[in-house]
Amino acid sequence: MHKSRLAGFIIDCRTDDLEAAAAFWGGALGMKIRDLPGEEDKYIELVDPGGRLHIEVQSVSHPSRVHLDIESDDVEAEVRRLEGLGARRVEKISTWWVLEAPTGQRFCVVRAKSPAFGKEAKE
Amino acid sequence: MHKSRLAGFIIDCRTDDLEAAAAFWGGALGMKIRDLPGEEDKYIELVDPGGRLHIEVQSVSHPSRVHLDIESDDVEAEVRRLEGLGARRVEKISTWWVLEAPTGQRFCVVRAKSPAFGKEAKE
Repeated sequence: MHKSRLAGFIIDCRTDDLEAAAAFWGGALGMKIRDLPGEEDKYIELVDPGGRLHIEVQSVSHPSRVHLDIESDDVEAEVRRLEGLGARRVEKISTWWVLEAPTGQRFCVVRAKSPAFGKEAKE
Repeated sequence: MHKSRLAGFIIDCRTDDLEAAAAFWGGALGMKIRDLPGEEDKYIELVDPGGRLHIEVQSVSHPSRVHLDIESDDVEAEVRRLEGLGARRVEKISTWWVLEAPTGQRFCVVRAKSPAFGKEAKE
């Protein structure tokens, strides 16, 4: 049986100035900024001092929002589980899926990468 | 000097069926549902098993989204700090402020209530 958990959230910002967006959100949330090698043009990580969540600021072309990321050791099985709860598939991007909740919010199912995944994820 | 930290997020759902919305999100995130006495018509709490964040599902009339909550021991001082970073005030509701980030997302500044606030919040 696969496992999953809330990994964190992504702050999607419709802007060409990703650094300014990350500076605002890092300052607002009291988090340091960390570059993600090879992804500097699109993503900047915010380091949660409590180590609670994985948080990134993303430059996007759609309207700004916040979206949740669910991580799983089996993305396809997790997407099927979420479809069973009422979500629908929107788009596969690289290794992750964008889904839409029955209540309308879009969110992603990504490959597990949190250090605490093995201990805290649930079947 | 006042302190603040990320308290969590609210899953705003444009729906009249708050229980169904909470059932979806609780199932999706692997979190149990907990009623908030006196607020059953508008809010249902999702209990993060890792105790990482305060999470609620809220019934709203605006389009569905996810918004972040920042908690502080001095809401007014925190709002002024965030205005200095570029946010703008949208609306005061009860004891909290709705702000809009320079990147467009709305978020709230609420009174501190997390058990870990005293230990983890930053000046």
